[in-house]
Amino acid sequence: MKIIIVGATGTMGRHLVSAFEKEHEIIKAASKDSDVIVDITSSESIGAMYKQVGSFDALISTAGPTYVGPWSKLTATEFRKGMEGKLLGQVNLVLIGQHYINPKGSFTLITGALSHDPQRNFANASAANGAVDAFVRAAAIELENGIRINAVSPTVIENSPQYFPFFPGDIPVTMKELEFGFRKSVFGANTGQIINL
Amino acid sequence: MKIIIVGATGTMGRHLVSAFEKEHEIIKAASKDSDVIVDITSSESIGAMYKQVGSFDALISTAGPTYVGPWSKLTATEFRKGMEGKLLGQVNLVLIGQHYINPKGSFTLITGALSHDPQRNFANASAANGAVDAFVRAAAIELENGIRINAVSPTVIENSPQYFPFFPGDIPVTMKELEFGFRKSVFGANTGQIINL
Repeated sequence: MKIIIVGATGTMGRHLVSAFEKEHEIIKAASKDSDVIVDITSSESIGAMYKQVGSFDALISTAGPTYVGPWSKLTATEFRKGMEGKLLGQVNLVLIGQHYINPKGSFTLITGALSHDPQRNFANASAANGAVDAFVRAAAIELENGIRINAVSPTVIENSPQYFPFFPGDIPVTMKELEFGFRKSVFGANTGQIINL
Repeated sequence: MKIIIVGATGTMGRHLVSAFEKEHEIIKAASKDSDVIVDITSSESIGAMYKQVGSFDALISTAGPTYVGPWSKLTATEFRKGMEGKLLGQVNLVLIGQHYINPKGSFTLITGALSHDPQRNFANASAANGAVDAFVRAAAIELENGIRINAVSPTVIENSPQYFPFFPGDIPVTMKELEFGFRKSVFGANTGQIINL
């Protein structure tokens, strides 16, 4: 299977590349140091990535910068910045990518438990995640040729201990659990699902 | 109670004004023909509205334009436009309004069933609604001084028969049911709730 991993240089991306590259053709995409350079906030850049890669079977996105910080400092400016990446960037990977993906291919986006389980300082991520969740359900009934779409929804992950204090009582998701969430979406048959970890 | 109704000239807004104005001081806000003129896509305009109105007890928002149309014509441009109104506009009404609202006041936003129950042609609204739902839950744990926030979530409403064909099997929500959803939020004690109609 030919799989594009967007955010391939990040913590999640590196793990997924390493887990999948033994059995699949992996195209690493990120803003630097990758097979393909892509800025997911730009339609032109996303289009160029797909033109360079050509047809493919699955796209995995682990890319989603959002504003993290005190509510008292959250204004429309920070909020919009978060929307551009995790929300619009990922939506646009699907809107453009549907014209390049093979029939029965799949898109798997990254979302997060903050959509239904908020924590202080993360209102921007909550909104972005809620939008991604709902977009996945909506896109699943629109995509044609058997193309599927799901999202993986972790709480804080084990490799980000700097965030542990912000998620009291949440058991960190392991990289293995995260990997299995993506496996379920890419190699399973479901569509329109939020895979809660 | 002093209540600002944003979107006061729309179908929902007019009904709510008429329902609440007998017992409360209503400030009608909309892009035209209102007590206060406001463009919710502009921070400056929202700030000017609150300065003009001064302190208040409740804000109701019924304003949320999104892109409605064929999936095949949906690009990042249309998607972003929808995000500016129903999502960022309403978020910004809260972020700025929290500095003007009285203690124990409330914000009530408009969202919709498309967040969890998608229909063709409405992926943009699904995403906006999903974001609003999640933002409401996140804001509820951040707002201080007993300030509450909820959202009212209807499916298609009875006064929009042009949309009925897009919502097969959905029983249209009556204006009275919609009004009672807002009543529950404004005059009840809950916070962080999505009031599904």
